[in-house]
Amino acid sequence: MPAYDTNNIFAKILRGEFPCHKVYEDDHVLAFLDIMPRAPGHTLVIPKAPARNILDIKPEDYAHVARGTHKIAAAAMIAFKADGITVQQFNEAAGGQVVFHLHMHVMPRHNGVALLPPASRREDARVLEENATKLIAALK
Amino acid sequence: MPAYDTNNIFAKILRGEFPCHKVYEDDHVLAFLDIMPRAPGHTLVIPKAPARNILDIKPEDYAHVARGTHKIAAAAMIAFKADGITVQQFNEAAGGQVVFHLHMHVMPRHNGVALLPPASRREDARVLEENATKLIAALK
Repeated sequence: MPAYDTNNIFAKILRGEFPCHKVYEDDHVLAFLDIMPRAPGHTLVIPKAPARNILDIKPEDYAHVARGTHKIAAAAMIAFKADGITVQQFNEAAGGQVVFHLHMHVMPRHNGVALLPPASRREDARVLEENATKLIAALK
Repeated sequence: MPAYDTNNIFAKILRGEFPCHKVYEDDHVLAFLDIMPRAPGHTLVIPKAPARNILDIKPEDYAHVARGTHKIAAAAMIAFKADGITVQQFNEAAGGQVVFHLHMHVMPRHNGVALLPPASRREDARVLEENATKLIAALK
């Protein structure tokens, strides 16, 4: 497996070199909206530790990502009046990974509504901002 | 959300009332092969705590499931000579959930090979036993 690339887009977001629609942050994880959501409110939870994926992250850091995912899922149910949540986490290209900093997808779901295909449409920044505001409010 | 059903199939597996192809167990989680694998070696990691899904599990129990998932993923790369791993966790029917005891799917992936659709084919018991043996060996 290739080494962790410190110039991947999520590393830049963590260093504040690239903007994001942040919804949550603690000592171990950052959560922000996917700019190409597969469902409204689609959120990514990433570790602050520099890990390519599940194969090079420490178990405790993966557990931190899980705790962040748990928090976002509960809030997303409220914020987006969701009927369910789909959680996905892809490792290496064969596993569906595109950005090589570990990230957990948290996707609010509604009955009868399929997920959009991955990266099919870039969401309007205003909509993302509204959804971030809703999620932040539900996290309080 | 409906209450946890103590008679779901995974609760029966946990109580030993129903068989499974077990690959790993500790104080907090049990891991066994999916009998309708979407890829060879498809494994489920479940908490011993009675939780319907991410919406009623305690954060620490979800973190335990993550640690188990981390362990299985590393071993599955070796056992199945995989190129990647896809992790999925579905919550409520709208989120893709079918069995209502929380479970994390860990699916070994190979370049150019798509996942089978969910529950499309029941695997031969002999193949499952061989795959369990491979995974148990890689976990050592």
